[in-house]
Amino acid sequence: MAISKTPDSTRRSERSRRAILDAALDLVGETGYQKLTIEAIAARAGVGKQTIYRWWPSKAAVLLDAFLALGEDAAQGERELPDTGDLEADLKSVLRATVDELNSPVYDAPARALTAEGVVNAELGAQFVAQVLEPQLQLYVKRLRSAQEAGHLDPDVDPRIALELITGPLTSRWLLRTLPLTHDYADRVVELALRGISAR
Amino acid sequence: MAISKTPDSTRRSERSRRAILDAALDLVGETGYQKLTIEAIAARAGVGKQTIYRWWPSKAAVLLDAFLALGEDAAQGERELPDTGDLEADLKSVLRATVDELNSPVYDAPARALTAEGVVNAELGAQFVAQVLEPQLQLYVKRLRSAQEAGHLDPDVDPRIALELITGPLTSRWLLRTLPLTHDYADRVVELALRGISAR
Repeated sequence: MAISKTPDSTRRSERSRRAILDAALDLVGETGYQKLTIEAIAARAGVGKQTIYRWWPSKAAVLLDAFLALGEDAAQGERELPDTGDLEADLKSVLRATVDELNSPVYDAPARALTAEGVVNAELGAQFVAQVLEPQLQLYVKRLRSAQEAGHLDPDVDPRIALELITGPLTSRWLLRTLPLTHDYADRVVELALRGISAR
Repeated sequence: MAISKTPDSTRRSERSRRAILDAALDLVGETGYQKLTIEAIAARAGVGKQTIYRWWPSKAAVLLDAFLALGEDAAQGERELPDTGDLEADLKSVLRATVDELNSPVYDAPARALTAEGVVNAELGAQFVAQVLEPQLQLYVKRLRSAQEAGHLDPDVDPRIALELITGPLTSRWLLRTLPLTHDYADRVVELALRGISAR
């Protein structure tokens, strides 16, 4: 029998890939980035180490892919922020969803582990920003540009800075654990930030 | 000769205390929080381990005191934000100084190490917030309240949320290393945030 890539083996590969990404997220949340090993990911996922090395060169690469997959699941395939024409409502809906994500244990522990490592490890931090974070931030840039074109936002405001007024408070409250992250907080931040950047 | 606390021994104690705090900051920046030990701090500071244990119960306690001392040095004894009556100018001067501090190697490496540990270690994170961060944030609350009383800020805005609009973008840009932290960035953030919270 010839060895060929059958639909069955593709399904098996996809199952292994998801098992590896899930295992990487679970383990990094449990042990932290430093103690995470490819061996442990392989054992948890029920695959051989070589299966992981065939697809990824390092644990950092596995984790970054795991976060990309997590982000895609959370966005349910959406690759844009909502654009109903009501910027305030759209941003509140996005930030409330972000609050829910940051408060969910599935996301919180692995995201903290990877972010903490990026704080002290400039190379990993840069990879995380380039591959995971910046593509998400660019969705805000696009939505804010569209609001500028619609005359809702001050055309002189730089969207790349404006988005940090909207997302920075939540990010730092989450990372530093200063106060609880709630929908009400997300709403207040959107309202104040929008007053700062709206057309005058 | 009676053994008594002479001015000389007080000076020696203060010298040892500063050497221990400096050593703790240097080492945590070099090795990270997890690998930091009281033994290594003692060796670097040129004191015995027992000297450290006489004053502090744990490495976390040493580090938190080291950060408090660092903050006091940076503030040069000032315990309030400037209040010239020009809120925008005052906030820009504070945020520019913060940018300089975050960009300085003396502060950056130890602050990243401690903050990263707080991101994954809720107990240390809470101690850091309560002892180091929140007292600084309360200086903003006080300055913003004074601006509300002067009629410069919207009285309906919660100063505890308003300060996060001002400081959150810098904190998250610093921790996540998304883009460079510059004086120009600090100025833009203050301008946009103030438009959001000013009296209407």
